[in-house]
Amino acid sequence: MYFDSVEAMDRAELEQLQVERLKKTIENAKKSPFYSERLADFNVNDIRTADDITKLPFTTKNDLRSQYPHGLLTKPLEDFVRMHASSGTTGTPTAIFYTQKDLDTWAELMARSMYACGCRKSDTLQNMSGYGLFTGGLGIHYGSERLGMITIPSGAGNTKRQIKLIRDHNVSVLHIIPSFALYFAQQVQEAGFKTEDMPWRIALIGAEPHTEEARAKIEEMMNIKAYNSYGLSEMNGPGVAFECIHQTGMHLWEDAYIAEIIDPKTGEHVAEGEIGELVMTTIRREGMPIIRYRTRDLTRFIPGQCECGRTHRRIDRITGRADDMMILKGVNIYPMQIEQCLMSMPEVGQNYLIELVREGVSDHMTVKVEIKEEFFVEDMRVLQGLQKKIAKTLCSEILLTPRVELCQHDSIPKTEGKAVRVIDTRDED
Amino acid sequence: MYFDSVEAMDRAELEQLQVERLKKTIENAKKSPFYSERLADFNVNDIRTADDITKLPFTTKNDLRSQYPHGLLTKPLEDFVRMHASSGTTGTPTAIFYTQKDLDTWAELMARSMYACGCRKSDTLQNMSGYGLFTGGLGIHYGSERLGMITIPSGAGNTKRQIKLIRDHNVSVLHIIPSFALYFAQQVQEAGFKTEDMPWRIALIGAEPHTEEARAKIEEMMNIKAYNSYGLSEMNGPGVAFECIHQTGMHLWEDAYIAEIIDPKTGEHVAEGEIGELVMTTIRREGMPIIRYRTRDLTRFIPGQCECGRTHRRIDRITGRADDMMILKGVNIYPMQIEQCLMSMPEVGQNYLIELVREGVSDHMTVKVEIKEEFFVEDMRVLQGLQKKIAKTLCSEILLTPRVELCQHDSIPKTEGKAVRVIDTRDED
Ligand SMILES: [Zn+2]
Ligand SMILES: [Zn+2]
Repeated sequence: MYFDSVEAMDRAELEQLQVERLKKTIENAKKSPFYSERLADFNVNDIRTADDITKLPFTTKNDLRSQYPHGLLTKPLEDFVRMHASSGTTGTPTAIFYTQKDLDTWAELMARSMYACGCRKSDTLQNMSGYGLFTGGLGIHYGSERLGMITIPSGAGNTKRQIKLIRDHNVSVLHIIPSFALYFAQQVQEAGFKTEDMPWRIALIGAEPHTEEARAKIEEMMNIKAYNSYGLSEMNGPGVAFECIHQTGMHLWEDAYIAEIIDPKTGEHVAEGEIGELVMTTIRREGMPIIRYRTRDLTRFIPGQCECGRTHRRIDRITGRADDMMILKGVNIYPMQIEQCLMSMPEVGQNYLIELVREGVSDHMTVKVEIKEEFFVEDMRVLQGLQKKIAKTLCSEILLTPRVELCQHDSIPKTEGKAVRVIDTRDED
Repeated sequence: MYFDSVEAMDRAELEQLQVERLKKTIENAKKSPFYSERLADFNVNDIRTADDITKLPFTTKNDLRSQYPHGLLTKPLEDFVRMHASSGTTGTPTAIFYTQKDLDTWAELMARSMYACGCRKSDTLQNMSGYGLFTGGLGIHYGSERLGMITIPSGAGNTKRQIKLIRDHNVSVLHIIPSFALYFAQQVQEAGFKTEDMPWRIALIGAEPHTEEARAKIEEMMNIKAYNSYGLSEMNGPGVAFECIHQTGMHLWEDAYIAEIIDPKTGEHVAEGEIGELVMTTIRREGMPIIRYRTRDLTRFIPGQCECGRTHRRIDRITGRADDMMILKGVNIYPMQIEQCLMSMPEVGQNYLIELVREGVSDHMTVKVEIKEEFFVEDMRVLQGLQKKIAKTLCSEILLTPRVELCQHDSIPKTEGKAVRVIDTRDED
């Protein structure tokens, strides 16, 4: 391991480290205009165990917006050397500032992440991601150099040149966004090369949430091992959590962040292994600490220990945004849970629709599902069997049995742009 | 100064340092496949003074191409952390490799350069240049962070967002390419802002050769001080030579490079102050030293001392490519010399043409010059006076008196694409 003493640290020791760093973080945060007010009455000695973090208030995206640009900074401006801002010219943006030490920490976490999935000093990495304000580009770049890989800052675009560079320089690691990877594999084939003859070994495919199926397809088409990662600019950028070679969830670097998973409605911790909103606290950032940041990203802690020996807990791939959460009969349900169930069944087509209606005092969910043509047979008993199977599969995931309606191929109306998957009429009169 | 002990070093001491570093560079270079052969018979003890560099052979762009990708490397591949390649998918590219130490040196030279033109730790720099394989982006980026400026990696494009970032973050230093600067100034005005109300102070406008007039126009339109710089990826990238606040030529960092100016035809040094081809030797690069590299760029050493106290010699702005050189009656002449003379005269329009013809055993140059409409008067004496004035001005620059023909506005045929400025029929039968 890149830093085995930290990465394989005994849990009790790690939690002790977290408590110490959290206390320092609180004291440091109080030097900023925002937290000096927000935490004015907070006594740092109230933090005794890692769980005491729940005594602290949340920080939200709106807090970052209202404090733009400098409200969370703990040091004079001239101590900072980097700023990344959210894109867009309308609305209030958010800005993240880094001291040199913060950049060093970030590069170290990135290098550690890439080492975890098998990258080594002797590798050559081609950074096929855009640079600029997007933290993915410079984040991977600095980590790759820190690990000692030859780093080729090819940037996005120009597929032909990308292929030439990969072949000329024996590139073994790609940083490529998942939605581009399949297109790129095709381009390689059209250029007359077999993907199995390409020198690559590892693809870093974070930056966009994607399914396990998408990963499997990338791995197959590109003849590569693809590793998922998690990050967000509020927590530096990429390198917050990263898969190791076992590909069983992403180790979240708990010496640098305290992660919690909460019910987005109540703000309480969910039970171990349950899906909820990821809440993050920086405990190794000096210039702009953020405490209990509501990421709005949905995930869960993966129970158990990883074979690799790293003790830092793993989070599951992001399965949606907290804003998408539905509550039915007191149960939190996320559209992505339903989508994943449906897509795992060979009979189900591409399109589905979730409807929530109120009937009297009771709420009901109906899931309309398009069935592939070859499975849409005349025999009613077969269709009823399929209907029951879908309902049962969904119940095992969302703990409620929805009504299931089977629909013919192409019968659910398509919408322009982003698909509408949920129609909730319960609060309409 | 950023490193005053080096930058203001006594010349004799500086030359001694160059000799020592040159000797080490030769020994190191011999570890590469290319130089181990090219310098096989070269005895490093033949270097006693800085002038002894002329005993070494030149290295050309074609050498870099034929040695692509690894022929000039002095260390195992895994010791490198960065690679920049020339763009283009056809023909043989060139590739420059950097160790971590080489990146550190480059960042230091960049920081020193920016400090020289007035950038300070308390400044905020917006890097409006594309990142990626182009060394200008990451070069400025690393130097800016090294100097301690807040570095905003905005990248190219998205003018509206650039303006918002500049205003929101009180950006005092821009890295902007000269051909984009005037357009950008317009956009700022169209967005409803006055350039004098913008927070900027300094523009770094290297990357493209440009005239003193272009700089003056940028400074006026943007209400900014614009500083020229010189660099090329074979010598790391930007940060080879940079203007100080006096704007009287670019200090070339002689502790890191040995610069020579040669006659591109003979390879001999030109007289002090004369224009010729810049030849560069890296004396602080460990991974990929390059000895006596023929840059093909034309410039001259500016005689005398700079008021700032830096002892490193200054080079003039690049006035063309060695490949453009004409030889007439044994004198080297560059089209840019003629252009600069013509453009300094208020009577002269935008278009001109240089013709070289052989008459018997003698060669002649005719310069056809379009005159602005308001100066193209009926009075022959006035026109003859102007003709003589132009001939005399040209003679003072190129040391030969050409024939001058005055032409009416728009009478010289225009060509599609890059203007044809020279027609040389001397070698035709
Ligand atoms: Zn693991
Ligand atoms: Zn000076």
